[in-house]
Amino acid sequence: MPQLTGSIVKYPARNLVTWYLVLIMLGTLLLTLPICRGSGSTNVSLLDACFTATSASCVTGLAVRSTPHGFSFWGQLVILCLIQVGGIGIMTITTFTMFNLGSKPSLRARAILTETLGASDDADLKWILRHVLMVTAITEGTGFLILLVRNLFLYDPLTAAWHALFHSISAFCNAGFALHDDSLMQFQGDIVVNLTISALIIVGGIGFPVMVDLHKNFPLGITRGWQNLHIHSKFMLTGTAFFLLMGFGGTLFLEWDGVLDQMPLWKKMMVAGFHSVTCRTAGFNTIDLASLTNATLFISMILMLIGAGPCSTGGGFKVSTVVVMALHAWKTFQGSTRINFARRTIPNEVIQAATATALLFSVVAIAALTMLLVVEQSTIPHPKSQGVFLDAAFEVVSALGTVGLSTGLTGTLSIMGKLIIIALMFLGRIGPISVFAALSRSERAVPVEYPKEEPLIG
Amino acid sequence: MPQLTGSIVKYPARNLVTWYLVLIMLGTLLLTLPICRGSGSTNVSLLDACFTATSASCVTGLAVRSTPHGFSFWGQLVILCLIQVGGIGIMTITTFTMFNLGSKPSLRARAILTETLGASDDADLKWILRHVLMVTAITEGTGFLILLVRNLFLYDPLTAAWHALFHSISAFCNAGFALHDDSLMQFQGDIVVNLTISALIIVGGIGFPVMVDLHKNFPLGITRGWQNLHIHSKFMLTGTAFFLLMGFGGTLFLEWDGVLDQMPLWKKMMVAGFHSVTCRTAGFNTIDLASLTNATLFISMILMLIGAGPCSTGGGFKVSTVVVMALHAWKTFQGSTRINFARRTIPNEVIQAATATALLFSVVAIAALTMLLVVEQSTIPHPKSQGVFLDAAFEVVSALGTVGLSTGLTGTLSIMGKLIIIALMFLGRIGPISVFAALSRSERAVPVEYPKEEPLIG
Ligand SMILES: [K+]
Ligand SMILES: [K+]
Repeated sequence: MPQLTGSIVKYPARNLVTWYLVLIMLGTLLLTLPICRGSGSTNVSLLDACFTATSASCVTGLAVRSTPHGFSFWGQLVILCLIQVGGIGIMTITTFTMFNLGSKPSLRARAILTETLGASDDADLKWILRHVLMVTAITEGTGFLILLVRNLFLYDPLTAAWHALFHSISAFCNAGFALHDDSLMQFQGDIVVNLTISALIIVGGIGFPVMVDLHKNFPLGITRGWQNLHIHSKFMLTGTAFFLLMGFGGTLFLEWDGVLDQMPLWKKMMVAGFHSVTCRTAGFNTIDLASLTNATLFISMILMLIGAGPCSTGGGFKVSTVVVMALHAWKTFQGSTRINFARRTIPNEVIQAATATALLFSVVAIAALTMLLVVEQSTIPHPKSQGVFLDAAFEVVSALGTVGLSTGLTGTLSIMGKLIIIALMFLGRIGPISVFAALSRSERAVPVEYPKEEPLIG
Repeated sequence: MPQLTGSIVKYPARNLVTWYLVLIMLGTLLLTLPICRGSGSTNVSLLDACFTATSASCVTGLAVRSTPHGFSFWGQLVILCLIQVGGIGIMTITTFTMFNLGSKPSLRARAILTETLGASDDADLKWILRHVLMVTAITEGTGFLILLVRNLFLYDPLTAAWHALFHSISAFCNAGFALHDDSLMQFQGDIVVNLTISALIIVGGIGFPVMVDLHKNFPLGITRGWQNLHIHSKFMLTGTAFFLLMGFGGTLFLEWDGVLDQMPLWKKMMVAGFHSVTCRTAGFNTIDLASLTNATLFISMILMLIGAGPCSTGGGFKVSTVVVMALHAWKTFQGSTRINFARRTIPNEVIQAATATALLFSVVAIAALTMLLVVEQSTIPHPKSQGVFLDAAFEVVSALGTVGLSTGLTGTLSIMGKLIIIALMFLGRIGPISVFAALSRSERAVPVEYPKEEPLIG
């Protein structure tokens, strides 16, 4: 028994699957209890409970059942607990795994924690958990207070507090569950709500190591602080800013005469900005996604695929992975075989790992989309199933990136379809860190070098 | 002037853009001549002539105008000449470039030609052109004779010969132009036509170096011959077989009760097999693409993206690129940093180039699809533009992979849409070899190595 406990503490990534399965099963059981059912709504089927529990634990946000009406207060509380545990859990475990696993020094990224925050050389689970809890409490607490003040103008004190708590946790954990059937569409023009939720999402998605790094270097002032930042933080901050701007500009341009039509300029900008923030794995929405143009939906899918940062509550490819791959391609075209950035060289193993991860991600997405198209459409020819392809692609990307946005397909999924989406949400949450763990397994013997012979490419 | 000629012969890739532009302009001018217009059809507009000339020169096969009815015999002859020149040209120039360009020995794949066929160490343009012409003449000649015999049962001798010639050239060049409005749908159950066209497509798409390598090693018998093959040929043959089987199995399974319904088993298999062959950049069809299920269309898009082989008449990512990337990912997951295959080590530069090419391809496809969605749909929201997303994605992939299949969007494209597709066909044809040329530019000074620092990924 102590041996088991020891193993769990020492290798949390190995037990990640078990942990999340237990969390989901527990959530499923609780959500099927009659007390969790919303008054006047139908019984929660086992499949729907499992879907909701998976969506909450994996902080995805896809819903087959209305959160405000399909579940009672107790049901919502269960969902909120799953979100909070799932969010804190993934941040803690991914951070621990990233910084401790693997005997290859080149794949141990411990430097950020040890160098920048003075964590002991063997940054242990407890240390990380304590700091993650601290960051979570501070951020969610601040968000809660601001939202509470805003909500007091709208609801009675108890409802105001409950909504503020729920949305603050859901936003920081990038979960995307909301206590309104229209997500946050009724707050489309509400500056306080938009800014607070956006800030919570961005902070939650940037990743724990970046927060630690920023906290350390903030006192040095902007210029010196920036220079001092770890290369990972620079990548994440620049990349996040770039993709946020891309999403903002794209949405603004493409929807100017679309859903943004007839809005004043400041509102156009706020709605486009919020959409850009939420696509990158949060999953709230202040516009009806189904009424966006295909071009906007496509850009949104790209943003959802890219996602947020490692060791965060967000999902996707991860911004830093995309930045590494882009730099790699750029340097290759320049004829260089070494990636230097800000006077640092990025080890080849990292680039290899990024490419392999991206490829695996793509293969899973392709296979899942094919399967979903098969089970949802069977033999319906293309002209009779108009539009379902985009809906299905959007749903797959949203589940795998643990984003939670949907053009409306979630509600009409068949049993098989729901099972596929459940599997994808689980894979999207557990997959990346497991892949990383696999990549950093103890060093193998270096294979023989044979005479070189190159295949033609391109 | 002699200097100019020398430069053209020495660096054909540099002049590739010019050559193809001249070919396309010439074709455009010829096709606008009244004599090229089909009797009873409307005048050929400049844009449509340019579209057709680009499609033919780049051996793509997308058509805004019916080949049999929109053009006279003379028009069809112009198209056929553009196909033949475009096909032979791209094979010759890509082979020459691959084997001669670049001062990095690791990016000179000359070994296949020099070692296996005893070409002089500086395999020159004339040598390659002569051999490409030989291969083309033999293959197209054989195809022509078989198709001629078959056609004599159907048409008068002159028509039979013309159809046999046109389809034989169009198939070997992977062009996909046909002298029937329904492509080859009326030959759906014709074993001779199916096998002949399929064989021409596969031979044309496998790539000139593989043909040379096979020719050399064929006399050694299967076992020793296989062992003796260059690693590139092994990749291409294995990969092509794998993707053909994947397309065949996928189509058979997904369309069993769909378009293949009510066909006898042998016909189901033949139609599925032909679809699998044609997706990989040929562009003929024996089934109505628009009536396939979304799942089949999606798989077809993946096959179109992968495409055929380097130094061939086919387009796409190229099979060998995909094989290299898959091997790379596989080895990475096994914890190895070196790719060994069949007692050969694949140089890192090749893997880098493959990844960079794939990334660039994806970026172009994403940008083009976004643009096409914008110009074709402007502000029409998703629910009102049902199905167009898949059609547009299919069209983009088809143009960029120089495949030429379409679910029917080509005919309804706006002027801007046509221009985008023209640009994509051109890029899909000229892009890969230009990228390769850029990648093999003279070696830069190796950059300084800084202290290593890794971003987190995954
Ligand atoms: K989410
Ligand atoms: K083609």
